[in-house]
Order: sequence, then C-alpha cells, then structure tokens
Amino acid sequence: MAQTAAAKNNGTPRTNSVNRESEILEAAVAIFAQKGYSAASLQDVADAVGLMKGSLYHYIDSKESLLFRIFEEAHVQANAIIESIEELNLGPGEKLREFTRRLSIFYVGSRDRANIYFTEWRHLTGTDAETVAARQRDMRVYVRTLISDAQDAGLTRKHLDVRIAAYFLLAAVNGIQPYLTSQDPLRAEAVATEIATLACSAILNNP
Amino acid sequence: MAQTAAAKNNGTPRTNSVNRESEILEAAVAIFAQKGYSAASLQDVADAVGLMKGSLYHYIDSKESLLFRIFEEAHVQANAIIESIEELNLGPGEKLREFTRRLSIFYVGSRDRANIYFTEWRHLTGTDAETVAARQRDMRVYVRTLISDAQDAGLTRKHLDVRIAAYFLLAAVNGIQPYLTSQDPLRAEAVATEIATLACSAILNNP
Repeated sequence: MAQTAAAKNNGTPRTNSVNRESEILEAAVAIFAQKGYSAASLQDVADAVGLMKGSLYHYIDSKESLLFRIFEEAHVQANAIIESIEELNLGPGEKLREFTRRLSIFYVGSRDRANIYFTEWRHLTGTDAETVAARQRDMRVYVRTLISDAQDAGLTRKHLDVRIAAYFLLAAVNGIQPYLTSQDPLRAEAVATEIATLACSAILNNP
Repeated sequence: MAQTAAAKNNGTPRTNSVNRESEILEAAVAIFAQKGYSAASLQDVADAVGLMKGSLYHYIDSKESLLFRIFEEAHVQANAIIESIEELNLGPGEKLREFTRRLSIFYVGSRDRANIYFTEWRHLTGTDAETVAARQRDMRVYVRTLISDAQDAGLTRKHLDVRIAAYFLLAAVNGIQPYLTSQDPLRAEAVATEIATLACSAILNNP
C-alpha cells in the first residue's frame, strides 16, 4: 500500500505501472502459496490489490503468465547468485561451498516463492514449460561444472559421479524448503548454512 | 485387465472387490501423476478401469479419498522399510546407511507415487491432512533417532545439529525423485545407492 502511494507521488504512469505490476506479482505469490495455484483465482489477486478483475488484464495476460513470471523472477535471482559467485575469484572447493550457501539462503529467505517453484511447475505449458526446463538444465550444468572443477583439483570424494552429485546437491538444497517453518531470518540463515555445509561435505573430501 | 479376469475366475465377490480397488488405485496413481491431481477427474479414473463413474463410488468416496489412499500406501511401505531395518540388528552407522539406501531405492522405484506424494499434499484436507502430517513427523523422528544413535556412538561429524541433519537427509533422498528419468531398474538402484551414500557421508564421519 505504501508502495502504491509512493508511485502516485512519483507521478509518472510508467513507474506507477511498474509498481502496480510488482504489487500484483507479490499478491499472486502470497495467494498461490496459500491456496495453491489451481485453487487460486485471478479474482483473488484482483481483490488483494484492490483492482477490478478486468483491470488486472492491463498488467497481465492470464493466471499462467503470472505463474511464469514468478518462475522467471526466481531464475533472475538464481543467475544473480551465479554472477556474484563468479566475481569472487574463489578456488573450486570454496566456490562450490559459497554457491551452495547462497542458493540455500535464497530459498530459505523466499519460502513462498520456492514452494511455488517446486510444486507448481506442472501448471506451466508450452513455451513457458520449455523455458523453465531449459533454465533448470542450465542450473544443473552450472552445478556440474562447479563439482567437476573441484574434482579436477583433487578436492572431491573418490569415485564421485559428478552428474548424480549435482542432482544430490540441488535436491538437498531445494528439498529443505517445505520443512522450514522458522520465520526468524537469523535462524533461517544458520539453517541454510548448515544444510549447505552438509551437502558440500558429502561431495568434497576436506570439509 | 489380466487382473480383472483372474478376479472373475476366482469367483468370490470379496477378492473381486479387493482386486478392483487396487486396480482403481493403480489407475489413479498413473492419472494423477500424468495430469496432476487438480486436472485429473474421477471420470478419467473410471474410463481407465472400464467402469461407469457412478459405479466407482462403490469402491471409493471421493477423489480426495483416492489421493489419501495413495499417501497411506506410501506410509505403509515406509513403515515396512523401518521394520525391515529394525530386524537387521545393525550398528548405528550401518543402520542409518541401510535405512537411507532402502528409502532411496523405494522412491526411485515408485516414481509416480513419490511425485504425487511430494507435490499433491496440498490437496488433502481436514483429518486426511492431519494424518499425513503426523506420519511425516513420525518419519522425521525416526530419522532423528537413527542419527542421534550414531552421534552417541561417536560416528557423526563434529557439531552436527541432529534436527537439521534429519531434514537434510530426507530432503536429499526425497528431492531426487523428480530428477530421475531413468527407467532402467538396475541403473535406478545404483543411483539410489549413490544418493544414500552421499547423504550419509555428509552426516557420518567415517564413510
């Protein structure tokens, strides 16, 4: 609500529209997470942001397009984590650890979005589904490269299957989401760090 | 279909009914896994088993009751794994490893059911939802006990948080499901074993 007021003061229709869009997206995240995507309606989203359902179509094309945007925002944030890691100039072991820690903290700190991401993918169709599948492949390839680099540097467990290890690491980090109920951000960060440590200590030979 | 013929030959209505029920449940697993629970209808299930939709109600109460039975079957199988482990008289480290390996193989070998289990829980309501939550708590408590026993025997990593480690282990094993596409049972078992090894080597100090 404060955001909408700020947008009004700003006065330009463009800023107004961008703020309104992000307000709609936030509302959709909360509603999809609470009701589940199937049970949620665009009417629910319209009610949450104080728009008529018809007016919602000025900002979005369909319920699926809202879901797809939530997925795309997650990909943007995941890519930002990858970029931040690449800037750090870490050795391969530390790079894997730090990437895993940041990804884990990201999921723990974006509970609703992560739950939507990991349970509602089925409702994406056509090119939306293909785009998401491609982004997920990219992520697996990135993690495989991190592990493979650590392996080349002699830092991994003996006889490690890099492909399975990449699946394992993502599963361990992704899968923790539904189990976390703590709303305390410091506690959540500690849990995320511990999970990342556990996942990496399964893969690296020198924890 | 062969099953239905066998049931007919058997001749007793009770066997007939039990076979028909398990046939309906199998069909529901396949249809829920393929279409998603929300999009699937009882008509789809009726069509798959060659019944009129009305006749389906001789065997089941509702679509949710079918979903709940799929969850309950998974709990029965998980409990069978726990019982089989308890009979083995293993030391705490080996017990954790063997439990994790069997749970992992179970999920990998029950791909459709596991996918339903991990994505469709939201559609269970009231006492069904409470029952499933209670069974999941029981499972976490069991895993915590296994890890805690290993810790008491001095077999775990230093400074291990048993509660987080239990979440981690279940996440690593549960979360692998959607990533597995191999239909080759030997390959699937090898992957499951490797995942269990990875998960346990994060927790135990002597892999």
